Amino acid sequence: MFAVTILGNNSALPMYDRHPTSQVVAYNEFLFLIDCGEGTQLQMSRYKIRRNKIRHIFISHLHGDHYFGLPGLLTSYGLNNRTEALWIYCPHLLEEIINLQLKAAETVLPYPLHFVSLENEELLFDDNKIRVTCFPVRHKIPCWGFLFEEKPKPLKLNPDILREYAVPSEAYGRLKAGEDFITKAGIVVPNQKFTLPAEPQLRYAYCTDTAYDETIAQKVKKVNLLYHETTYLDGQRDKASLRGHSTTRQAAAIANRANAHRLLIGHFSSRYEMLDIFLEETRRDFENTELAVEGATYLVTN
Amino acid sequence: MFAVTILGNNSALPMYDRHPTSQVVAYNEFLFLIDCGEGTQLQMSRYKIRRNKIRHIFISHLHGDHYFGLPGLLTSYGLNNRTEALWIYCPHLLEEIINLQLKAAETVLPYPLHFVSLENEELLFDDNKIRVTCFPVRHKIPCWGFLFEEKPKPLKLNPDILREYAVPSEAYGRLKAGEDFITKAGIVVPNQKFTLPAEPQLRYAYCTDTAYDETIAQKVKKVNLLYHETTYLDGQRDKASLRGHSTTRQAAAIANRANAHRLLIGHFSSRYEMLDIFLEETRRDFENTELAVEGATYLVTN
Repeated sequence: MFAVTILGNNSALPMYDRHPTSQVVAYNEFLFLIDCGEGTQLQMSRYKIRRNKIRHIFISHLHGDHYFGLPGLLTSYGLNNRTEALWIYCPHLLEEIINLQLKAAETVLPYPLHFVSLENEELLFDDNKIRVTCFPVRHKIPCWGFLFEEKPKPLKLNPDILREYAVPSEAYGRLKAGEDFITKAGIVVPNQKFTLPAEPQLRYAYCTDTAYDETIAQKVKKVNLLYHETTYLDGQRDKASLRGHSTTRQAAAIANRANAHRLLIGHFSSRYEMLDIFLEETRRDFENTELAVEGATYLVTN
Repeated sequence: MFAVTILGNNSALPMYDRHPTSQVVAYNEFLFLIDCGEGTQLQMSRYKIRRNKIRHIFISHLHGDHYFGLPGLLTSYGLNNRTEALWIYCPHLLEEIINLQLKAAETVLPYPLHFVSLENEELLFDDNKIRVTCFPVRHKIPCWGFLFEEKPKPLKLNPDILREYAVPSEAYGRLKAGEDFITKAGIVVPNQKFTLPAEPQLRYAYCTDTAYDETIAQKVKKVNLLYHETTYLDGQRDKASLRGHSTTRQAAAIANRANAHRLLIGHFSSRYEMLDIFLEETRRDFENTELAVEGATYLVTN
C-alpha cells in the first residue's frame, strides 16, 4: 500500500470549502504528513486519518498556508497524551516559532519533538523499504519538494527451479539479493536461473509551491505519481511566474519532461470556483492527470 | 444592535464539528473579534461574518485554542489587500510570535497592525458609545476577561412639554445631557420636567478560560449578558479546578453573584458529545441560561 490522501487542495485563501495545503502519504505501516495548513487536524477527523500513526511531518516552506495548522496538531497530540517521538523536517525558523508558542502557553509536550532543518538536497528519512529526500523548488522564499522512493526490492524466486536444484531455504535470502547459488558439488549456478525480476520501485514526488522550473523534472524522473501545483490556469502565466507559482500547462510540461507516469494537480487559487477547467487544460498536454480532490486517495502504482 | 455571534464553542481539542473558541461582538457599526482559535476564518465564511469590518481583536490568553487561527486571518487580510489598521489586544508574547511568522514568510502586511499588551485591568477601547475594558480571570497562564459597556445614553425628551414651554431645538442637546432649561423670562425649569430616563446602558462580559473566581462576579456586576465558560459538568469540579476551568454550577454561581441578567455558557470539553446536560445543570441554579451554539447570535438586551 502506497497512497496519497489529500486534506487540502487550495492555495493560501481558503474558499469554497477548499482548505490550505496538506496531504498524507501512506506507505505500509507508515503515515507521513506533508504540509499542515490551518484546519488540517479538522480535515484529519473528517477523513478518518489515523493521526497517531504519523511520526514524520514534512513542511515545504514557511508560508502560513503550509504550516498554520501544525501548532494545533502538536498541541492536540499533547492533550491526547502522545508519548511517541515526532520528527518535523522544515525550514529552520519553524522550530523557533513552535518553541515560542509552547513557551507562551507554558506547555511542555509529553512526547519528544525533533526538528530537522532543511538546508541541502539530502536524504531525510531512511527505512529498509522507503526513503525520503528533499530537493529545492523555485518559490518566493526557500521551498522544498519531497521524493518518496521505495528501495530496491528483492528478486522473485522461481519455486520450480529451486526444487529442481534442491536449494535449501537458508539460501533463499542470498538468491533474492542477487547472489549466485553453489551446489554441494561446488558448481556455481547463476542467479538468473532461479530468479525473476524484482517488482519495480515505486516513487512519489511532491512539488509545491513552485514556479516552472525544469530542474525539477530532473529530480523527479520517472516517478509513478507526481504532485505538482497548478495555482493558475495557463492564461495567468505572468502572474504565476511573478508569484512563484505554476500553471496547468507548466505542470504538464514538467510531467512530460520527467516522463512521469501520472500527474496530480492542486494548490488551486481561490479566484477559481470550478476546477474542471484545470483538468482539461492540463490533460491537453499530459493525459494521465488527476485533480487533487480533498478526501480522495490516489494510489502510487506502476 | 448589540449582539454576540459564536464561531467556536469547544475547548482545546476540536471535535464533533465543534471548533475552538472565537466569537464576534457586533455593536452598531463596530465588529469586534474575541479570541481566534484555529479555523476561525473558515467559520467566518460559513456564518457570513463581514470580516473586513473588524478593526479590534481581543485575545484572552496564549493557549493555542484561543489564537491559532489569528496568523491565518492576518495573512488573509493581507492577501485581500486590506489597508485599514487593525488593533490586537493580547498578552505581549503574541506580538513576538506574529512578527516571527511574518519574518519567516518574508511577508510585509499591507495594513498597519498595532499590538496592545494586556498588563493591567484597564480601558482598552473607548468610543463615544461603547468602551471595552479587561480584567484578570483565573487560569493556568495569565488570562483576561473583557467587558463591553455602552456609555451613558442621553435622556429622552418629552415632546409635549417641549412644545408647552416653546423650547428651541438648539436647547435639546443640553436637556438630553441633563441640564435645566432657562426660559426667556429667566425662569429655571428643572430638567426632569422635560425628560424621561435614558435607555439603560447595556453590558456584555466575556470570561474564559477561568476557574471559579468570585472576584469575577464583582467585575461583571449586573451585565445584561455574561459569557462564562463551562468546560465541565459539575461532577468534574476537581478536574476543572486543577486545570483552571469551571463547571456548569460554578458558572451559574458567578451569574447569580453578579446578578447578571442572562448567562451564555461555552468552551465545552471534547469529552462531551451531547450538550443538553450542560444547559440542564446550569439552569438548575440560574434559569436564564443559554448554550453557546456555533453560528447562533445572542442579543445583548435588557
